[in-house]
Amino acid sequence: MSSEAGFTHFTQDGRPVMVDVSDKPSTKRVAVAQARVRMQSTTHDAIVHQAVRKGDVLAIAQLAGIMAAKKTSELIPLCHQVPLHHVALDLAFEDTGTSGNGGEAVLVIEAQVDTAYQTGVEMEALTAASVAALTVYDMCKALDRAMVVEQVRLLYKDGGKSGVFQAPQNA
Amino acid sequence: MSSEAGFTHFTQDGRPVMVDVSDKPSTKRVAVAQARVRMQSTTHDAIVHQAVRKGDVLAIAQLAGIMAAKKTSELIPLCHQVPLHHVALDLAFEDTGTSGNGGEAVLVIEAQVDTAYQTGVEMEALTAASVAALTVYDMCKALDRAMVVEQVRLLYKDGGKSGVFQAPQNA
Amino acid sequence: MSSEAGFTHFTQDGRPVMVDVSDKPSTKRVAVAQARVRMQSTTHDAIVHQAVRKGDVLAIAQLAGIMAAKKTSELIPLCHQVPLHHVALDLAFEDTGTSGNGGEAVLVIEAQVDTAYQTGVEMEALTAASVAALTVYDMCKALDRAMVVEQVRLLYKDGGKSGVFQAPQNA
Amino acid sequence: MSSEAGFTHFTQDGRPVMVDVSDKPSTKRVAVAQARVRMQSTTHDAIVHQAVRKGDVLAIAQLAGIMAAKKTSELIPLCHQVPLHHVALDLAFEDTGTSGNGGEAVLVIEAQVDTAYQTGVEMEALTAASVAALTVYDMCKALDRAMVVEQVRLLYKDGGKSGVFQAPQNA
Amino acid sequence: MSSEAGFTHFTQDGRPVMVDVSDKPSTKRVAVAQARVRMQSTTHDAIVHQAVRKGDVLAIAQLAGIMAAKKTSELIPLCHQVPLHHVALDLAFEDTGTSGNGGEAVLVIEAQVDTAYQTGVEMEALTAASVAALTVYDMCKALDRAMVVEQVRLLYKDGGKSGVFQAPQNA
Amino acid sequence: MSSEAGFTHFTQDGRPVMVDVSDKPSTKRVAVAQARVRMQSTTHDAIVHQAVRKGDVLAIAQLAGIMAAKKTSELIPLCHQVPLHHVALDLAFEDTGTSGNGGEAVLVIEAQVDTAYQTGVEMEALTAASVAALTVYDMCKALDRAMVVEQVRLLYKDGGKSGVFQAPQNA
Repeated sequence: MSSEAGFTHFTQDGRPVMVDVSDKPSTKRVAVAQARVRMQSTTHDAIVHQAVRKGDVLAIAQLAGIMAAKKTSELIPLCHQVPLHHVALDLAFEDTGTSGNGGEAVLVIEAQVDTAYQTGVEMEALTAASVAALTVYDMCKALDRAMVVEQVRLLYKDGGKSGVFQAPQNA
Repeated sequence: MSSEAGFTHFTQDGRPVMVDVSDKPSTKRVAVAQARVRMQSTTHDAIVHQAVRKGDVLAIAQLAGIMAAKKTSELIPLCHQVPLHHVALDLAFEDTGTSGNGGEAVLVIEAQVDTAYQTGVEMEALTAASVAALTVYDMCKALDRAMVVEQVRLLYKDGGKSGVFQAPQNA
Repeated sequence: MSSEAGFTHFTQDGRPVMVDVSDKPSTKRVAVAQARVRMQSTTHDAIVHQAVRKGDVLAIAQLAGIMAAKKTSELIPLCHQVPLHHVALDLAFEDTGTSGNGGEAVLVIEAQVDTAYQTGVEMEALTAASVAALTVYDMCKALDRAMVVEQVRLLYKDGGKSGVFQAPQNA
Repeated sequence: MSSEAGFTHFTQDGRPVMVDVSDKPSTKRVAVAQARVRMQSTTHDAIVHQAVRKGDVLAIAQLAGIMAAKKTSELIPLCHQVPLHHVALDLAFEDTGTSGNGGEAVLVIEAQVDTAYQTGVEMEALTAASVAALTVYDMCKALDRAMVVEQVRLLYKDGGKSGVFQAPQNA
Repeated sequence: MSSEAGFTHFTQDGRPVMVDVSDKPSTKRVAVAQARVRMQSTTHDAIVHQAVRKGDVLAIAQLAGIMAAKKTSELIPLCHQVPLHHVALDLAFEDTGTSGNGGEAVLVIEAQVDTAYQTGVEMEALTAASVAALTVYDMCKALDRAMVVEQVRLLYKDGGKSGVFQAPQNA
Repeated sequence: MSSEAGFTHFTQDGRPVMVDVSDKPSTKRVAVAQARVRMQSTTHDAIVHQAVRKGDVLAIAQLAGIMAAKKTSELIPLCHQVPLHHVALDLAFEDTGTSGNGGEAVLVIEAQVDTAYQTGVEMEALTAASVAALTVYDMCKALDRAMVVEQVRLLYKDGGKSGVFQAPQNA
């Protein structure tokens, strides 16, 4: 068995292609992706304090993620242009928060995307979560250039021939 | 001391703004960012085998990263539009490769961006590395939906008032 | 009753979201929007005179409006990506024209957008009318920097659960 | 004197062109534009009440305006691609507010854009103000479809051969 | 008979419009377009030699064509936004190759696009082929500035009211 | 001597890269490109007749070319983002016109682009000419699907280390 049997973005002779979904039925699709941003606890404090006033790092990152989901097919070369029915992001600090973790805090970003189409929306959810994380980086980088976006991954997807995917715990 | 002193993307009353760089001198800037993609060793094998033939996951991801660098200011809301002088990505599997790591392999992506402008290119390098990583995910997801993009971070930057940043080891 | 009951772009805890239209039926939608551009009568004369020769301010503005309608979801953060079935703009000077109005003339721009989708196209029609008006400004600004775009508003929409909207007269 | 002498976007035979700025010096430029959104006082109340909680219509509109400024040359056909040094929007309700005006309120949006380039940034400021206003419309349209964006106009510009422009009062 | 009867992008009074496809049924559509790039045989040799190593002019051009197909409605003013179901490009040198043609070689690019929609995808296929050809030019222009893209044309289309089109031989 | 010495878009080990122009001086650059559209003489007549009324195929194609020049770096993967100082297109039918050529006519499109930057604008001129030609195709395709875009090529360029290029006659 050839390893290429598993790739969906190559033709039989190994050339890249936007795969033909003409004969796939349009079905309901959902995907949930996550990104985590590790930062100094002082950066966490600055974000939280700022949010009390009018500027709000998390609200801007959330909006950037929603807008990026709509741009996915421009960024990922072989992605289809999927009209999205719903995009929502949730951004929250982990409870261990600022103290338990050696002076570090972790912001957890979850992005959910829904549609009804011939192909799934995993890349849209991953792009939304990634761009939201990068936006947090951009807004806080003057405070903390060593922030790390860790664990960008798919948490869940449903719809389509391959059915449900649920990420393993502790990945 | 107010925490807002540290933010550069908010005005004094806490509103978001694209910061004024009018009075900053145009100087040479460089930034290097990294993303790591953890995958099953069978996925690694498929990528390497494919590359021997004409399709090439890594070449497509590399190109996607270069093109994404040019779109950074469309994705990150408060980024300036920086005309880039040089964008280069390097993608290589870690030596421990397919065996030493419990059946896993790690692809290391490094993106370097150079310019001469009034503001830095950290976000362009991070965006290039992130989108290259997401492109690898897209092309291999039929094989391995549990791949994780980890450790998206700035490795190095130089130029501008804040000078050199070098990421800590073992971050 | 909470005021948030009326907002469709916020979740229950007040976060922005691209609202879920998964369960809405795809129905025929139409929206008509208007923008008015008030200018000096000498500017009106220049536009009309130019149109006799080959350059044509109104034709360029019309095209800019059509192209902008297709970009609406990139501009308005929480808009869905609606595939448009029809976009048409009409640009004409008000009859009172150059004389009756204290040396001023008013260009009336109307944009109509049609689709069949799960959500309406009010924003597409408003964006088309606005960008057409700004394009007129751009092309005539060397003549008349005091031009004013006034009365950008929705004239009519039909389709969807909320049914017909007809703008009040003399708004 | 031909009326075409005044147009800068046409060649001598009347064809549209992106005008040649090769021989213009790069100088500091600033432009300030305004848009006003007239709405029912109940809509004003909903915006203000919402802002106390986490969602914030004005913050989203502000961000949309900043991002739109960066897209101006994609929207206005003959605009140059100007790298912007600074974009800031201010959104505030007029003092007369909800009571004095027959049950109506007016939101005033001001956008300032700065650069140093061979051409001005009037269109960038006008685009930022317009798109911010349309975003307010989008987020409140379920409450108040009769909102009107009125008085989109240039308030001030400086830099370049034509020097300072200051909008007349009571325009 | 008026010549305008034949145009589909103008209204009865001659104004451009994005034509109304609301009442057209969504049917399967396919289009195949071609571009040919004539170059020196030494340029051909450089492309072929390069492909043996990791860089690959043809693979990059192929990817550029796929991504351009998705941007067609941003480039061609009156095109609809068609969600594409399949995009594939084939790039190959003509057999006469490097010798028989006076020291010249011809690269043949074919692009196929499929969808199911209310309008066809001829422009998407032509755009994909054109941009792939221009990308070849870009990557080889330091070697051969006199390369010519010749014969960009539609080879075949099916679907829609006008039925099958098959390009004449020897066009 | 390796053939790769001639490529400017690959690193020494054959990977694609956006080449480093950091150390190149910013100098005046100009490029002129051409595209030719061969069509039936009846299509020529329809275009010319239409132009007498308000719709104007050539004016729309001209505008599409100008706007496409600004999008070049989004289309051609390894192109730099060059801020353009001047874009002008000229579209005219060849004199032999409708009669001498076996019932065919040829529309000649010339695009000139100017800038002052560290790299040239050949690709911008070629992209402008190509997209203008494709726009003509789009607007006339209901009349004449067998139109051919031919001879897309660089006519002239100046500026930069490689100096002047002048296309050979009768290419």
